[in-house]
Amino acid sequence: MALFQPRSVAVVGATEDRNRVGGRPLHYLRTFGFEGKVYPINPKRDTVQGFRAYASLEDLPEAPDVAVIAVGGDHVQGVLRQCAARGVRSAVVMSSGFGETGPEGVKRQSELVTEARALGVRLVGPNAQGVANFRSGAVLNFSTMFMEVPPQDGPVAVISQSGAASVMPYALLRERGIGVRYVVASGNDADVSVSELALAAAADPEVRVLLLYIESLADPAVLAQAAALARARGAAVVALKSGRSAHGAKAAASHTGAMVNDDALVDAFFAAHGIWRADDVHGLVNAVELYLACGLRSARRLVVMSHSGAVGVVCADTAERLGVALAELEPGTVQALARIMPGFATAQNPVDLTASLLSDGSMFGRTLDALAGDPQADMFLIGVPVAGEGYDVPGMAADTARFLRRTGKPVVVSAPQPAVRAAFHAAGVPVFGHETDALAALHQVTRHAALVQAASLREADASPASAVPAAGRDTRRTRTLSEAESLALLQSAGVPVVPHRLCHSAREAVQAWQELGPDVVVKACSAAIPHKSEHGLVFLDRRSEEEVRGAYEECVARVRTLGQPLEGVLVAQCVRGQREFALGVKQDPLFGTAVMVSDGGKYVEVLKDFVVLLHPFSEQDVLDRLATLRIAPILAGVRGEPPVDLQVVAKAAVALGRFAAARSGQIASIDLNPLIAGAAGAGGWAVDAIIEQEESRHE
Amino acid sequence: MALFQPRSVAVVGATEDRNRVGGRPLHYLRTFGFEGKVYPINPKRDTVQGFRAYASLEDLPEAPDVAVIAVGGDHVQGVLRQCAARGVRSAVVMSSGFGETGPEGVKRQSELVTEARALGVRLVGPNAQGVANFRSGAVLNFSTMFMEVPPQDGPVAVISQSGAASVMPYALLRERGIGVRYVVASGNDADVSVSELALAAAADPEVRVLLLYIESLADPAVLAQAAALARARGAAVVALKSGRSAHGAKAAASHTGAMVNDDALVDAFFAAHGIWRADDVHGLVNAVELYLACGLRSARRLVVMSHSGAVGVVCADTAERLGVALAELEPGTVQALARIMPGFATAQNPVDLTASLLSDGSMFGRTLDALAGDPQADMFLIGVPVAGEGYDVPGMAADTARFLRRTGKPVVVSAPQPAVRAAFHAAGVPVFGHETDALAALHQVTRHAALVQAASLREADASPASAVPAAGRDTRRTRTLSEAESLALLQSAGVPVVPHRLCHSAREAVQAWQELGPDVVVKACSAAIPHKSEHGLVFLDRRSEEEVRGAYEECVARVRTLGQPLEGVLVAQCVRGQREFALGVKQDPLFGTAVMVSDGGKYVEVLKDFVVLLHPFSEQDVLDRLATLRIAPILAGVRGEPPVDLQVVAKAAVALGRFAAARSGQIASIDLNPLIAGAAGAGGWAVDAIIEQEESRHE
Repeated sequence: MALFQPRSVAVVGATEDRNRVGGRPLHYLRTFGFEGKVYPINPKRDTVQGFRAYASLEDLPEAPDVAVIAVGGDHVQGVLRQCAARGVRSAVVMSSGFGETGPEGVKRQSELVTEARALGVRLVGPNAQGVANFRSGAVLNFSTMFMEVPPQDGPVAVISQSGAASVMPYALLRERGIGVRYVVASGNDADVSVSELALAAAADPEVRVLLLYIESLADPAVLAQAAALARARGAAVVALKSGRSAHGAKAAASHTGAMVNDDALVDAFFAAHGIWRADDVHGLVNAVELYLACGLRSARRLVVMSHSGAVGVVCADTAERLGVALAELEPGTVQALARIMPGFATAQNPVDLTASLLSDGSMFGRTLDALAGDPQADMFLIGVPVAGEGYDVPGMAADTARFLRRTGKPVVVSAPQPAVRAAFHAAGVPVFGHETDALAALHQVTRHAALVQAASLREADASPASAVPAAGRDTRRTRTLSEAESLALLQSAGVPVVPHRLCHSAREAVQAWQELGPDVVVKACSAAIPHKSEHGLVFLDRRSEEEVRGAYEECVARVRTLGQPLEGVLVAQCVRGQREFALGVKQDPLFGTAVMVSDGGKYVEVLKDFVVLLHPFSEQDVLDRLATLRIAPILAGVRGEPPVDLQVVAKAAVALGRFAAARSGQIASIDLNPLIAGAAGAGGWAVDAIIEQEESRHE
Repeated sequence: MALFQPRSVAVVGATEDRNRVGGRPLHYLRTFGFEGKVYPINPKRDTVQGFRAYASLEDLPEAPDVAVIAVGGDHVQGVLRQCAARGVRSAVVMSSGFGETGPEGVKRQSELVTEARALGVRLVGPNAQGVANFRSGAVLNFSTMFMEVPPQDGPVAVISQSGAASVMPYALLRERGIGVRYVVASGNDADVSVSELALAAAADPEVRVLLLYIESLADPAVLAQAAALARARGAAVVALKSGRSAHGAKAAASHTGAMVNDDALVDAFFAAHGIWRADDVHGLVNAVELYLACGLRSARRLVVMSHSGAVGVVCADTAERLGVALAELEPGTVQALARIMPGFATAQNPVDLTASLLSDGSMFGRTLDALAGDPQADMFLIGVPVAGEGYDVPGMAADTARFLRRTGKPVVVSAPQPAVRAAFHAAGVPVFGHETDALAALHQVTRHAALVQAASLREADASPASAVPAAGRDTRRTRTLSEAESLALLQSAGVPVVPHRLCHSAREAVQAWQELGPDVVVKACSAAIPHKSEHGLVFLDRRSEEEVRGAYEECVARVRTLGQPLEGVLVAQCVRGQREFALGVKQDPLFGTAVMVSDGGKYVEVLKDFVVLLHPFSEQDVLDRLATLRIAPILAGVRGEPPVDLQVVAKAAVALGRFAAARSGQIASIDLNPLIAGAAGAGGWAVDAIIEQEESRHE
């Protein structure tokens, strides 16, 4: 991408003052060793910051690869035309006064982008802090940060919609001694998107970690491409998608006029594509050192080693909070440890070397040797609560670095002393100030690796996922199908449906009872009345001819009273299972077909115990996600109950996803509630459903 | 306490080598300016580390206030006797080889403590890293940490059972530039306990924050005293009680041979006494700067101010995760902000100064002035994502410090640049590297203040709480009361009980039905069969004479088949309410009478949606805690349902606590399940209960 690797740069609105927007890029291009051509545009001066100045773009000796536009907002459109005339194909628009200012600005921004597209000029911005490449020194960016925190090239890219959110991670990474190659802030993100910029950064083979800050995601398909590219070469993508909370979404909307994405779909999208979702700026940077040290490596069982028992205790607590299991060491390892450690130390996990480490420094390396071969141990936290005089800190650091290289397994060190951290960092070992950050990094990298593996499997398995759904269709109208129609469609989709008959007379109803009984449910079927129970149109446990006949006649009478059409009366078998689920399908204009699976019951919305998956996904994906529900232990069987048949739930979810995705212009939504699942192996049945159809496909 | 303020110290086992346990304290006493007398005991030398040495304790010219014992474990008992002979009343036993080594060591430790008590010598340890007072330089401690991280006196005390867990917080605090007065590690905690040491530190009027690390709490009553003392002078107590998880508890047990406390009771105890429970070492230290800056100040509504919109968005998300509300600014404040801020900035909370701050540095102070008077705004996060050349950082720091002094409200700054942090720190403003730590500190201090207020109210209200229950009574036997007996006791305790009759004939049962009907529950009453449902001994919804009579006879027949005694058959009114709760009472040998209130239903144990309170507590305490349940929105009324009558639950919980506490030698446990509560105002009823009574009170 020319924006990242320009050979020549013009700065329109160039000034001598390096503290102004039009002065900073020139200062940085000189300071950070950019070797291409630099063309300040300033009609009033011969030189700007020592570079030869030009009166206008048309005076330039060549068409620059990129133009930085740092003029007043009113002048941007004029400069854009000059860019096009001079053959400039990319511009970084730092000028503000666009979408961020309100409706007027939104209109102006839309005109700017329309014209840029017509002219064939790609824009970063407007209102962009700009792009920076610290390898080439192409720093087309006005952030003060690079004046204050010296850059160093490295294998990390920070791609952000916000300027502040691009330099906060930068500063925190640099404080940890980590080099950063790209720092990009796309501002209003109106043309070249954060996803496209991520794709360009992912294409750089030396970038191993991409950190993204997103307030509004407009083109998930492009981000999915970036994630696939990163995944293919083992690079990690971590994204902070803010605006999760109601207040956050409101703040994001007023920050960049951003549209708000449905947060559960964002979660599902990131998970599907192997992107780790960070909760905050700290979470964005915390694990970077570990990604760089060991790559994306899946692991489940933690070993904690320290010369303090308290570290082991605290880590065991924190690991449980994070859902990380402690490894049960193999007997051979325990024996080897027992030979190394003094009588009273615990040759178990957590491994406690005790203060004996002070008198015998070799214990540290010998203990690591004993642990290296244990297949149970697949990630490590080494706690160094205190060290210094009397301890061989450089030796411990070297031993740990060797262990890391030899095993390739994820290892982190926790040390509260800055000097101890510096020694481990110098040896190339990921090191943290406290156990909580260290364990959070281990948890993130190893779980992220599992996500990435699953995404790769899906990619290999599936026909190419069309992550790009049909264009927005807010103006379309939908039609609610009746229960009978909805159940029929579900059945055709491959979802097991409760045996039932749509009856048009009391006689038919009684006949249906005779076939389906001994007990049946009788309910009115009317697309106009989706919430039947509220109107007393559901009769449970009908067990006799009279009861069935009576229910039938009540249905007819009540629907007539409501003045609604009646398609018939449904007589359905009474099915009894172990647990009720609710499944929903939504066609999202950005993310495609999303399937929600939730615990059933009347408090679904309040208890919020649900998962969302984006089509395509596998039955195993559903089972993996169901295992994260709060009710998971109940589903697995408690109090002597058998486990619930989750296969039937997973199959139904996959079937609904396939069915709806293949009919993305026809099926608007599906609400299957409840699906009653029996004990494992006993199957389950869709008992009620409402499908909304698109009214017309071609308007 | 002489241990903290000794005027003279003997070191038994003194050595020249400052890297050995017997050498470190001498080195520290000299280095850190201890002005009292130092007496190394070493029969082989004239001087040790420049101090005049003595052959034995009896040769000393005076009885030293404290003896440090740094001899082999086998020799400790002998030295102890010499101490007593020379009139030493306090000793720090650094020697290991006691409880931490296994059953033999436990026995040896118990003998040591018994003898010390007989001799009138108080011991810290054994296996203790020791005590340190950095005001006086009385550092009777062998940690390497003080060689590496220079001490500075300050208003913080770290009191720990573990050596490592005492110096990790110390190092992290010192890295943040915070001074620490006491660092104490009591090791096996066999005589002078961490609670007693906390009490001593709380008595120092200059200590404003106490940080505790506890693996096993043996004397909660003493810790409660320490908390009360701290509370009385506005000092904060933060405790990391580890061993929360199963693995953590196991690790703690093998670390110090510690007994494991019931974790939910620990939570309840800390909450009752206004002690904030930290989850980890980071959580122990993270808020210290804020405690020191603003004290314990309760606040609910957050204002976020920054010159980046992204900071506002990210903080809004994080605040929601923590349960912190954003303030709705008053109209006057919004108008004042709108006058200060440029057209497009958001004069709302989060407050976004935008990049205009760069061109007009005075905006920062003027915005703070506008916010200072808003009563809605009671805590503040100021985000400084980037600053430096072009920004007036010292001015911003001074403005913030002035704002802090003027309003007295909690204020934190988040800044990823170390230099910016240093400027705010120098001005006395609490500052953090990222928003998450900053918000976590605000959340902690303001909620902690609310806990402390509630504890003070309880203290003022209540008769002195006897936090010390009767001594352990593991050997006592208990007797299970029948349901009828249990319900009768509940009624006497003031808990509303479902109307019922204990019947001894079918005729009586029918009569009871006639009084209590139209529908009743019939159940066998036998103390020997606490789980009636499992044996088919509960008959719901009996509505006729035949049904009641039949149920009565079934009860009699089935209990006979089981070969158990039958006290009678209970006939109870059918009560229908809105929600079922389970209440439990436990008499804990350490913490006293604990009352658990939980959501009802058969999955109570799995879903773990419960609260625990320690007697004494108020109805308001119960209501406050119930509001933290996951089902709280359901209890408040959803889907058109009225709110649940939580008053009846709160009253029942208080009544059970009072009743059981007053009978701590008689009532062993109460299991009330369910309590059926109706809609608000409609009351509720205890429907079933099992009480276990102590078999005999005086064995």
